Amino acid sequence: MDHLQQGWFTESDTWPGAGLSLQVEEVLHKEKSSYQDIMILQTKSFGKALILDNIIQCTEFDEFSYQEMISFLPLCSHPNPERILVVGGGDGGVAREAVKHPKVLSVDVVEIDERVVKLSEQYLPFMACGFKHDKVTLHIEDGFEFMKNNAQQFDIIITDSSDPVGPNESLFQKTYIESLKRSLKPGGIICSQVGSIWIKEDQDTMIRLSKDCSANFKKVTLATISIPSYPTGNISFILATDNELVNFKVPAYSFTLEEMNKHKLKHYSPDLHSASFSIPRFARMIIPHINC
Amino acid sequence: MDHLQQGWFTESDTWPGAGLSLQVEEVLHKEKSSYQDIMILQTKSFGKALILDNIIQCTEFDEFSYQEMISFLPLCSHPNPERILVVGGGDGGVAREAVKHPKVLSVDVVEIDERVVKLSEQYLPFMACGFKHDKVTLHIEDGFEFMKNNAQQFDIIITDSSDPVGPNESLFQKTYIESLKRSLKPGGIICSQVGSIWIKEDQDTMIRLSKDCSANFKKVTLATISIPSYPTGNISFILATDNELVNFKVPAYSFTLEEMNKHKLKHYSPDLHSASFSIPRFARMIIPHINC
Repeated sequence: MDHLQQGWFTESDTWPGAGLSLQVEEVLHKEKSSYQDIMILQTKSFGKALILDNIIQCTEFDEFSYQEMISFLPLCSHPNPERILVVGGGDGGVAREAVKHPKVLSVDVVEIDERVVKLSEQYLPFMACGFKHDKVTLHIEDGFEFMKNNAQQFDIIITDSSDPVGPNESLFQKTYIESLKRSLKPGGIICSQVGSIWIKEDQDTMIRLSKDCSANFKKVTLATISIPSYPTGNISFILATDNELVNFKVPAYSFTLEEMNKHKLKHYSPDLHSASFSIPRFARMIIPHINC
Repeated sequence: MDHLQQGWFTESDTWPGAGLSLQVEEVLHKEKSSYQDIMILQTKSFGKALILDNIIQCTEFDEFSYQEMISFLPLCSHPNPERILVVGGGDGGVAREAVKHPKVLSVDVVEIDERVVKLSEQYLPFMACGFKHDKVTLHIEDGFEFMKNNAQQFDIIITDSSDPVGPNESLFQKTYIESLKRSLKPGGIICSQVGSIWIKEDQDTMIRLSKDCSANFKKVTLATISIPSYPTGNISFILATDNELVNFKVPAYSFTLEEMNKHKLKHYSPDLHSASFSIPRFARMIIPHINC
């Protein structure tokens, strides 16, 4: 399948034997940055969409699901999440959500590709607005390098990356998990996107990363969420910590209804927080290193 | 988009502006029955697939998710689910699951289109095996007519239908909900598939049906599950009952680990049962008639 033909964009490389297609009204932008192919589409039903190396990163229609969940699952599991690091996150969406947590003092976003930031500011202001908040600092830098210079600095490190190809390959390796561990404050929590429980290649990533996490952290778990524009409509996060008091299924901080309304949360709630850690039997059985 | 071209089947009518494509190795069968177009495909990654009126009904790869959840969410919420009615379910998958519950004495499956049954027996024996169980009785009949002659007979009625088009249109109407109510024993539970929380047209169906349910039942709720081969990777079920002692979030019967292993459950667990009733905030906010 060609990716762009007859008015449709099809993502078929990430999901062998299957593909999700979005009807396209206009290709708003297309370029090759130093790191990847970048495309911004105006779709018919999903609003604007950011595509990197022919993989859908986010769409205006459902990005809230991903951004809210990858942010608040770790933040609300931590008793005092003051310092937040986001590796990747060049669209600004995670920063936009993270600052909504009342205990957050700072959010550092380390994105390797400045063009993703610039194009998000131009075409996806509903996410890039995250960079405008005075608690947020943007660094155009390699996440690995940044962490080398920032040991024991963060309560939460969120890895908001694309799939393990191209510039993100190193973010799915054992040395990366060790690097995360070094940059965490004692008792900190990591949260990394690891693809779909339904895709064999992603399962292999989860098995490997959960093993590496269990070698570095006392508690390792997996959460899954519903999001239509990702392959299989499902994406998962590995979370890990050395704080034995953390019970991922029970939020340490529960947003009140007033807070959820004020912050316009559309997906996350304390109730859904707990539910996200309940995963289908087949997934739990093939990922043995999940221990809570 | 054509549905079948260049070795791919694409379902695009159910999800405006988007479509899921499956790579096809062989079209095993194609016919027009008295009720609908039926197609059986051998796909590359999803095994065999049953397609009715160009809508994917089930695939060998992930059918277990749907069959287990639409069966055990209502069955395990009921204190004594002895008599089960399945409206639709001509592939046999729900019957296959329902008989695994230790309290079940009988499962009546009422399918309007005999050709779906015959083709499932021929091409999808892993589901049609459900019809071979001695507790299962198959009726080739209109579900509405069957229920007229069977008042107050069933503890559980599962509506395992296709989308609200063609022969299934009547299953999404107010009179159908009233008909279900008449055929339930006191304290019985209904469970109907109602599409994806992410699709506007399905949301409209949910809003309407949940309103009709709340006019007929004291408790009405919604569950959602992950299933890649349905539009948006998500499908939802409306459940309702007059039994005020039912707490849908807490199974009345919990399968033991031994039972789950013996019955080869791949998706359902008591833990996931509870989690399935936690739905994203946006969905809860637009479906006001959910009351538990």
